[in-house]
Amino acid sequence: MMTALPDDLIQRFVTIVGDKNAVRDQADLAPHLVENRGLYKGASPLMLKPASTEEVAAIMKLASETGTAIVPQTGNTGLVGGQTPRSDASDIILSLERMNRVRDIDPVANIIVVDGGCILDTVHAEADKVERMFPLSLGSQGSCRIGGNLATNAGGTAVLAYGNMRQLCLGLEVVLPTGEIWNGLRRLKKDNTGYDLRDLFIGSEGTLGVITGAVLKLFPKPRGHQVAFAGLNSPEDALKLFDRASTLCGAALTGFELMPRIGIDFTTKHIPGVRDPLDTVHPWYALIDISTSDTAETAQTMIEDLLEKGFEAGVVQNAVIASSDAQRTALWHMRESMSDAQKPEGGSIKHDVSVPVSKIPVFMAEAEAAVMQALPGARICAFGHLGDGNIHYNISQPVGADKAEFIARWREINHIVHGIVLSHGGSISAEHGIGQLKRDELADIRPGIELELMRRIKTAFDPAGVMNPGKVVSV
Amino acid sequence: MMTALPDDLIQRFVTIVGDKNAVRDQADLAPHLVENRGLYKGASPLMLKPASTEEVAAIMKLASETGTAIVPQTGNTGLVGGQTPRSDASDIILSLERMNRVRDIDPVANIIVVDGGCILDTVHAEADKVERMFPLSLGSQGSCRIGGNLATNAGGTAVLAYGNMRQLCLGLEVVLPTGEIWNGLRRLKKDNTGYDLRDLFIGSEGTLGVITGAVLKLFPKPRGHQVAFAGLNSPEDALKLFDRASTLCGAALTGFELMPRIGIDFTTKHIPGVRDPLDTVHPWYALIDISTSDTAETAQTMIEDLLEKGFEAGVVQNAVIASSDAQRTALWHMRESMSDAQKPEGGSIKHDVSVPVSKIPVFMAEAEAAVMQALPGARICAFGHLGDGNIHYNISQPVGADKAEFIARWREINHIVHGIVLSHGGSISAEHGIGQLKRDELADIRPGIELELMRRIKTAFDPAGVMNPGKVVSV
Repeated sequence: MMTALPDDLIQRFVTIVGDKNAVRDQADLAPHLVENRGLYKGASPLMLKPASTEEVAAIMKLASETGTAIVPQTGNTGLVGGQTPRSDASDIILSLERMNRVRDIDPVANIIVVDGGCILDTVHAEADKVERMFPLSLGSQGSCRIGGNLATNAGGTAVLAYGNMRQLCLGLEVVLPTGEIWNGLRRLKKDNTGYDLRDLFIGSEGTLGVITGAVLKLFPKPRGHQVAFAGLNSPEDALKLFDRASTLCGAALTGFELMPRIGIDFTTKHIPGVRDPLDTVHPWYALIDISTSDTAETAQTMIEDLLEKGFEAGVVQNAVIASSDAQRTALWHMRESMSDAQKPEGGSIKHDVSVPVSKIPVFMAEAEAAVMQALPGARICAFGHLGDGNIHYNISQPVGADKAEFIARWREINHIVHGIVLSHGGSISAEHGIGQLKRDELADIRPGIELELMRRIKTAFDPAGVMNPGKVVSV
Repeated sequence: MMTALPDDLIQRFVTIVGDKNAVRDQADLAPHLVENRGLYKGASPLMLKPASTEEVAAIMKLASETGTAIVPQTGNTGLVGGQTPRSDASDIILSLERMNRVRDIDPVANIIVVDGGCILDTVHAEADKVERMFPLSLGSQGSCRIGGNLATNAGGTAVLAYGNMRQLCLGLEVVLPTGEIWNGLRRLKKDNTGYDLRDLFIGSEGTLGVITGAVLKLFPKPRGHQVAFAGLNSPEDALKLFDRASTLCGAALTGFELMPRIGIDFTTKHIPGVRDPLDTVHPWYALIDISTSDTAETAQTMIEDLLEKGFEAGVVQNAVIASSDAQRTALWHMRESMSDAQKPEGGSIKHDVSVPVSKIPVFMAEAEAAVMQALPGARICAFGHLGDGNIHYNISQPVGADKAEFIARWREINHIVHGIVLSHGGSISAEHGIGQLKRDELADIRPGIELELMRRIKTAFDPAGVMNPGKVVSV
């Protein structure tokens, strides 16, 4: 293939990790040049697979000295093109897949220390072995890796009670663009000693450094866990039910997800084993997840009490409480399959937006009106983390429409939906980040001083401009 | 008085806020030149009291243009000299006391928006009016102000369940050193759009900008609240009891404070109305605070269950559960008076340290041995937030010793205690920050690259070096 990088330079990078840990064959590279949605296809002559923080440091040092661009990549599950090399073949991919160790686990201190390339499900499994849990829960947890989860400040379905990745991390080890190593692997709940570098790296999408290690929080396993699925008339009723649930359950409310009827239709039709949990049909549904620390009975009592009050108030039309672990898993599986279930229905224009929780109903109404006017026949499958104000506002193409023509309207429709989001003080990227997909749009909507501060930070940390260039902010 | 600033320059600053909002009289300035512990005494020719964000911006613009140093000051309750001007009278004090409004409160969205000069207790009272609560709880809450709470990432007694100020803030409005205004007053639970500027300003102690406004989180008031006070044999037993409490109560455990016998002696002796809650004497005590969202009975059941299991396991020797709101308040009052109760006992050398929670007992044992060797007869009154790993390791002078001679050994004793803290991966400032007091020590203990990154950020945000110079990091 064509490459913008001279052979002797490539050889210097290869030498750092050794021949067998340097991928140059284009067939082997291919899966790392595309991302899941097929929105971006990059090019690269080389992927390096270092085994240690020191090897990562040597790579970044050489990169800064020679002005060579590096794209960090972990599980390649990102949804905004942040992990995809640019198309001119000038970026080297830095994969953390060999740095996948658990370095330490301490159940007394409720801490696990891992490499940046550790797979999320490995963290779940290791925590489970010592009777602890790590709350981050994502559809891609079998392949996404902690370094990427941190770089994108991943969210998922347990944010309501436990927070984003930012809240689940105590300390970081980062290789800077210049090749220096910052050891910030602290294990402290409280530490007010200078600027918050940790939170600056978290969510910077690999543009300020490579996260090679992290100290993560573990939690005692809840004793009680209960899941209910409720049929509702409207997002307004969902909000009312959420308010009741928050007040009644406090921190025991560990999930509150909103789903539309069409999402139930898609999942029951396309996802093997998924069945409609209710024998009645409703325009909207809520999945409610409650975890209690004291006893299993508390969770059961709470969820029964919540649904009873919901019925009495007329906000719940019908509901079922899971009667086994298998049923709890099945309810969550339906929710987590909702994005995949859209694929057989053709093209889908997606949004990952948030608004203040109380604005969800008005946002949904305004967005539906605007989208249906622009895209008659479109099938809106808007679902997500109502409790966080975060909706995955996905729009499946009209039945029988041309997929490519539909997808070509992605930016136009984004512009419409994001305009409504912004009018309610919302965010155009609630949990997926900016990457390539929303970089220019971010520059359009944010005040100049905010972009300017981001550029100053970028330049201060990466003077040679070699760290994932072209992502998040253009310098 | 002598001043390093020319009269015409001072007049230009005065013009921005108007004569009556510019304090030049040294008697009026005096309280703003010292801090509570008497460790620092600064000098300044002028304090400005702007009424608006725009006036703050005009002040900072002029400051950057003329290279004039500005020290932001809110409640002047900081404990590390961060709010005290330097002694050469070259700093102008910027007070936010007139910017003390609640801008908006939305109980449905659980949000309050306030000026940076809003007093913490005002936030408590306003939240209370709409049946909500704001969890930050500090001894100085009657006079400290939100801008300072954010600038120092304040902690306090509710961190265990609700987090530091960092976790309680959704958005900020900041005037930059250059006079530009960053409007980051977002109200979103999830927002992954670029670098985390909010968390960079929080905890930067007024060296990167002036926090003029903030969006804070409110919470539903708990329905159940119960407080117990338990006599214990050792910090080891306190840790065992804390582990049980965490597992049993989860997020309902809203406080777990450790106190030594001498702290009970001091408070019962010196603080009016404080009585020993138990009729037996123990070397250590724990104050346990539980808040439940569902019912009042849950809190009562939980605390009874916890103490019963503690008795059975031999970790609790005696205990009392508060039987009224007045008793709950009295137990907390004893704990919060512990620092003041040391004052009549003479000089006190203080530390605000944290270690991983599981290391508290070994830290306490090692610190006691080292301190008693260095200071025979000293009276260690180490108390604090055991659940956060945060101990206020305060040492009262030996009875009859010379106060000035004792205090003169502050840095020597700090060095000993901090050495032990660092050997356990701890922090030399868990919640009070760096300010002037720990600036040089921080530079000594942190890797060069960390200081270098902090300096680069400081220079990128404050190229003229006018924003609270000499605090946190020297450029």
